[in-house]
Amino acid sequence: MKVQVYVTLKPGVLDPQGKAIHHALEGLGFGGVSDVRAGRFIELEVADDVSDTDLDAMCAKLLANTVIENYRIERA
Amino acid sequence: MKVQVYVTLKPGVLDPQGKAIHHALEGLGFGGVSDVRAGRFIELEVADDVSDTDLDAMCAKLLANTVIENYRIERA
Repeated sequence: MKVQVYVTLKPGVLDPQGKAIHHALEGLGFGGVSDVRAGRFIELEVADDVSDTDLDAMCAKLLANTVIENYRIERA
Repeated sequence: MKVQVYVTLKPGVLDPQGKAIHHALEGLGFGGVSDVRAGRFIELEVADDVSDTDLDAMCAKLLANTVIENYRIERA
């Protein structure tokens, strides 16, 4: 089974990577962009018996830094 | 308007970051994971008059390396 994990910076946490992307988009002439936030997207192929609790533990322990990041798990 | 961009490696392209995550999950005792692919997730705040063509150009020119990566755009 495929599982998608989205890791995003919490609101208020500075995002230099997003700022750099924003600046580069403006440099390329793309207007109308007011904010960019960069995150990670991780796709796991897991066995059907892997529980939601296990997936949550994977995110909390390894995939996301819960001090500054939020995560969202979607089973596909 | 919020726009989400998902950037993933094309199938067949080696993914050392995904491999490292997979290995670390096994090291932490999480079984049942057969594959991990790492990607990027970029959230843009854009004006309503930014067209799909513009968004596509942003991805093709800056956000994704289309030689080895695919991208998907979702307007929220």
